[in-house]
Amino acid sequence: MLDISEIFNAAAVLTDVARKTAIIPAPKLRPGCEIFLKTENLQLTGSFKLRGAYYKISQLSDEEKDRGVIACSAGNHAQGVALGAKRNGIKAVICLPAGAPISKVEATKSYGAEVCLVPGVYDDAYARALELQKEYGYCFVHPFDDPKVIAGQGTIGLEILEQMPDVGAVIVPIGGGGLISGVAFAIKTLRPDVKVYGVQSSGAPSMAASLKEGKLCHLNDVSTIADGIAVKEPGVNTFEMCNRYVDEVVTVSDDEIAAAILALIEQQKIVAEGAGAVAVAAAMFGKLPIEGLKTVCLVSGGNIDVNTLNRVITRGLSKSGRNYTFVIDLADKPGQLSGVCNIIGEAGGNIISVTHDRLNHSTAINGCTIRVELETRDNDHINAIRDALAAAGNKVLN
Amino acid sequence: MLDISEIFNAAAVLTDVARKTAIIPAPKLRPGCEIFLKTENLQLTGSFKLRGAYYKISQLSDEEKDRGVIACSAGNHAQGVALGAKRNGIKAVICLPAGAPISKVEATKSYGAEVCLVPGVYDDAYARALELQKEYGYCFVHPFDDPKVIAGQGTIGLEILEQMPDVGAVIVPIGGGGLISGVAFAIKTLRPDVKVYGVQSSGAPSMAASLKEGKLCHLNDVSTIADGIAVKEPGVNTFEMCNRYVDEVVTVSDDEIAAAILALIEQQKIVAEGAGAVAVAAAMFGKLPIEGLKTVCLVSGGNIDVNTLNRVITRGLSKSGRNYTFVIDLADKPGQLSGVCNIIGEAGGNIISVTHDRLNHSTAINGCTIRVELETRDNDHINAIRDALAAAGNKVLN
Repeated sequence: MLDISEIFNAAAVLTDVARKTAIIPAPKLRPGCEIFLKTENLQLTGSFKLRGAYYKISQLSDEEKDRGVIACSAGNHAQGVALGAKRNGIKAVICLPAGAPISKVEATKSYGAEVCLVPGVYDDAYARALELQKEYGYCFVHPFDDPKVIAGQGTIGLEILEQMPDVGAVIVPIGGGGLISGVAFAIKTLRPDVKVYGVQSSGAPSMAASLKEGKLCHLNDVSTIADGIAVKEPGVNTFEMCNRYVDEVVTVSDDEIAAAILALIEQQKIVAEGAGAVAVAAAMFGKLPIEGLKTVCLVSGGNIDVNTLNRVITRGLSKSGRNYTFVIDLADKPGQLSGVCNIIGEAGGNIISVTHDRLNHSTAINGCTIRVELETRDNDHINAIRDALAAAGNKVLN
Repeated sequence: MLDISEIFNAAAVLTDVARKTAIIPAPKLRPGCEIFLKTENLQLTGSFKLRGAYYKISQLSDEEKDRGVIACSAGNHAQGVALGAKRNGIKAVICLPAGAPISKVEATKSYGAEVCLVPGVYDDAYARALELQKEYGYCFVHPFDDPKVIAGQGTIGLEILEQMPDVGAVIVPIGGGGLISGVAFAIKTLRPDVKVYGVQSSGAPSMAASLKEGKLCHLNDVSTIADGIAVKEPGVNTFEMCNRYVDEVVTVSDDEIAAAILALIEQQKIVAEGAGAVAVAAAMFGKLPIEGLKTVCLVSGGNIDVNTLNRVITRGLSKSGRNYTFVIDLADKPGQLSGVCNIIGEAGGNIISVTHDRLNHSTAINGCTIRVELETRDNDHINAIRDALAAAGNKVLN
């Protein structure tokens, strides 16, 4: 279906359009492994999607270009098509479900696309896009199951081989499979000795299930914080290519993905979205046999909603003992709260919030319960504060 | 004091030690300006400090190397010296104040340095470092006021000129002044047409004040979220070099720094610490005449405490209308809370927490107050939810 010359052609077309993103070392993600990150989250539009979309659009006939393109997406593909069309100087219409985050709608508009907000969910927006395509003759840019789109994504494979000739394994996120199809095809054609592994979210394992069954599987429900790879069914082309070129596909849980996002922030100073962090999660949690191999994890995108990011960080902080909420029973008389605050302050805890409740039915009639939320250093620090509170006669419930 | 050949020598020594960090475009940070980021937050150890520390250590005599080095720092310099010493194969002792964040202590240890935790604050740790230096003959690695350290940081100037030959202006954070001294010296020596601007936090403007007064100024109190540049007094060498080579120094507020940190996360997918974001803040908020100039902001580091990051994000979300806490007076009868929750859900608000308080003295004796914390899309969304609540007869206090 694809010829390697098409990937080289895509690379030539993408010069001065897509950034050749850096590969950066990640020495602490998994002790004993040599891990590197291909930072496509630092690509223009915040994800790799620009590559495939731009290349696809560039290869349209003049007559097709005159009619313009249409796509349906609430995420990275929308921005990729919008900027790809703008750089090619043609019209783009993007259908989005009406509830899509304002930030994504604004980003898509900012690249000059016409945005069509469709009431309902993704499937409604998709149906509307097909209607508009028929009505106006737009060219439909598929998010993954198109050979030109796959060729564009495959340029990442060429870059990895060029930037790191001694690479031993590459780990790639899978949603519909366009990214890994291109990357695996490029790498296995040029360097069949290099392992190519795929990763899906365990909440949306459509490609993993399809490969296992040996035929396309359709999932009725998908649910994961990695919304960029929450795809119910792989493509016909991408399924064939994964079957042929990918060594193994594994899955990771939402908790593992969240831990990977936090590790990338703390250790690597980069922001990944859920889908962008699954390859790192697979490496961190030992899902793949990469010991002894120079391994590149593809961080495919960084367009995470900041509210989601905030929740991931907050939960990660709790898990690692860097914040804690004490619940304390107090005698309900003046000075009790200030006593508790003093103890916490002296122990180096940093109070974020205090909730004081005299009506809790589980406490004595003349008592009260306070909840104190703290920033702490680690679990030992939490225990030290708990001990100090108890030593002063406070009843620490939690 | 410095010769440009020393900077070239440092660059040669740092090959294979420091990463040549990428310059990435930042097209949305300030409309109408052409801004790029030199991403030293993606440097090994998470900041540029490795460059100066490694080069300084590499130039010691064999006898000095045998004795080892000592430094005092609670931050990036500690990690830079630790890794610099390790890569040079020599011993390093790092004095830190005992209250330093565990993460920084662990990072410093992980590079193989001997960590000496000193009770008290930075000044106590510094005094202890000087004692140990005398006692054991260690070589003291100054964080900024040393020509070899300055030469190491100057390699960033060479890289910028090589990576972006048509650069028109470079904006650099200033704490003690070591970074900007090296960068400005390299750039003004080779390309005097390129503007070099410095930025300090308005809570710690020691270099800005010194340049204005024409002599070294000592600040008694410094306070800023940009702890990496909270320096009370510039160096003798760095003051002279800034005086000679820097075009202008401006200051930015903590609010501006926080906005820059959030913009870097959302738009650029990178994590900067406060000090690392001041150059971006200066560009974002129009502090410098960069219109028409290709401008490189130096993002000097990304070692931000995750608790601090969490607070910056939370406050940024509130400011931009992406979370909100409603306070509502309810009649105290069954079904009221579920009614409010239904209205919010239908309006697309995402409830994070609910606090329900029947004892608030400002409400009617048979009423109660609830506080509902929500994730929202923007300020218009908040107003729409408020209108829906009021239309259903709820008294919205806030």
